[in-house]
Amino acid sequence: MSGADDADAADGADGMVYLVGSGPGDPELLTLKARRLVEEADVVLHDKLPGPEILGSIPEAKREDVGKRAGGDRTSQEYTNDRLVELAREGRTVVRLKGGDPFVFGRGGEEAEHLVAHGIPFEYVPGVTSPIAGPGVAGIPVTHRDHTSSVSFVTGHEDPTKPESMVEWEALAATGGTIVVLMGVGKLPDYTAALRDAGLAGDTPVALIERATWPDQRVATGTLDTIVDVRDREGIEPPAITVIGGVAGARERVEAFLANELGGYEDG
Amino acid sequence: MSGADDADAADGADGMVYLVGSGPGDPELLTLKARRLVEEADVVLHDKLPGPEILGSIPEAKREDVGKRAGGDRTSQEYTNDRLVELAREGRTVVRLKGGDPFVFGRGGEEAEHLVAHGIPFEYVPGVTSPIAGPGVAGIPVTHRDHTSSVSFVTGHEDPTKPESMVEWEALAATGGTIVVLMGVGKLPDYTAALRDAGLAGDTPVALIERATWPDQRVATGTLDTIVDVRDREGIEPPAITVIGGVAGARERVEAFLANELGGYEDG
Ligand SMILES: C[S@@+](CC[C@H](N)C(=O)[O-])C[C@H]1O[C@@H](n2cnc3c(N)ncnc32)[C@H](O)[C@@H]1O
Ligand SMILES: C[S@@+](CC[C@H](N)C(=O)[O-])C[C@H]1O[C@@H](n2cnc3c(N)ncnc32)[C@H](O)[C@@H]1O
Repeated sequence: MSGADDADAADGADGMVYLVGSGPGDPELLTLKARRLVEEADVVLHDKLPGPEILGSIPEAKREDVGKRAGGDRTSQEYTNDRLVELAREGRTVVRLKGGDPFVFGRGGEEAEHLVAHGIPFEYVPGVTSPIAGPGVAGIPVTHRDHTSSVSFVTGHEDPTKPESMVEWEALAATGGTIVVLMGVGKLPDYTAALRDAGLAGDTPVALIERATWPDQRVATGTLDTIVDVRDREGIEPPAITVIGGVAGARERVEAFLANELGGYEDG
Repeated sequence: MSGADDADAADGADGMVYLVGSGPGDPELLTLKARRLVEEADVVLHDKLPGPEILGSIPEAKREDVGKRAGGDRTSQEYTNDRLVELAREGRTVVRLKGGDPFVFGRGGEEAEHLVAHGIPFEYVPGVTSPIAGPGVAGIPVTHRDHTSSVSFVTGHEDPTKPESMVEWEALAATGGTIVVLMGVGKLPDYTAALRDAGLAGDTPVALIERATWPDQRVATGTLDTIVDVRDREGIEPPAITVIGGVAGARERVEAFLANELGGYEDG
């Protein structure tokens, strides 16, 4: 579409879209900018990922849940993209509130492109991302001089046995770095097997952090060999982060840390 | 050391250490929690990375710069570790303010371990990390459905030609994902060569983001083949982020984005 579409806008004055990261869920982990923009916005488009506390703090009158729109012949993502353009054309100031950071596996890149393609002014507002903060609040630094000089974030919702899978588990294993898997609860058996096949030791430490920084956060730990059983026994469910590598293994450090800070720690 | 050391603490009451991420530099990208803790702290230990605006907003009387302490027979890191313990033992509430997120190449993991080893209560407070926010504010999402299903953060300050280098550039290239290099201005010629040797195409897009979200932010773009020349011509200096991969290449998207938001864009 071209800029000529802008002539359709009410009063000729387009609104503005802010693609805003909410952080992992603790309302105090919102940035000052996110807090201000949410307050100033006419409409806040969101799904469930920002979590109950942050969503509960936004007046219901300006919230619009676009997370449950799947069905019919349009995907939820198409609906969201179009709704952002529509609201901006009406001259609204729109916050598109996304869990964590908008550009980390959040399809924020696609939303940004859609807005650019339709001539809608927008701004990206980064947030605290769950693959770093989630392990961190469980006492696990994703990088550590003694263990690793790289960390990789990867999506776990692809089936690693399918040839069209884009995730190169073998190469990830070969980096020797920390591996953090998002959307990786369901396919845990598949990619832990793929990583073992790629040569990672069965006793490589693994931690699962469920609903990090939410009031009901839980942490469970094990190894590449045991973590599927741990997940099943503890009933770990999405949203959760899987962290794989030496950094996940300093049990004493983690326990001392958790003794200070957190409840809900489950032994794996 | 054992818990018996605690008997040395003034009044027997230890203080508390908060390992706090400042985000990349824009004061509005501090979290609400970071802002509150900085206000409540007795002492804020910092180096230069939080940037001039955030540091300038903290009363000088409670700031302590530990970034320039190298020299003598103790490293800056050892000095910082010991100073944290010392201040906590005096009963102070200490914020250790670190650029970005404390657990991303910030040696926060080592500081946390040192505090645990000395029985000092502490808490990790995540921040907005520069390898995500830096590319993002330049219009580059580190993940994108069309380009990549993984992103790796890696340190660039090791010499890739040295055998003891821990960074596996070949494996990183083989992931097919976005590669984000921190501390990677000086060794840019070495690791771009290593990535080409590992099979990445010479026309793979690369962007450099210098002082992301600081008032004097700059962005320069090129390819694996050209980026060293671009760096030299533009005089890009640390702190800067290098982002390598398809996501760095959507020049039109980046330009449209920057036209909206930013100045200082340099064409590569
Ligand atoms: C579509 S991705 C979005 C990630 C988000 N943009 C971010 O930066 O954190 C959704 C996945 O993020 C992870 N996630 C997000 N928030 C989380 C939280 N509070 N605790 C654990 N995992 C979380 C889970 O792996 C979840 O399946
Ligand atoms: C020791 S690492 C610390 C990273 C930090 N903990 C984080 O999460 O962003 C220092 C490197 O971070 C990157 N960096 C930090 N802040 C930056 C900024 N505002 N702009 C560009 N690069 C930055 C640079 O690559 C710098 O060399």
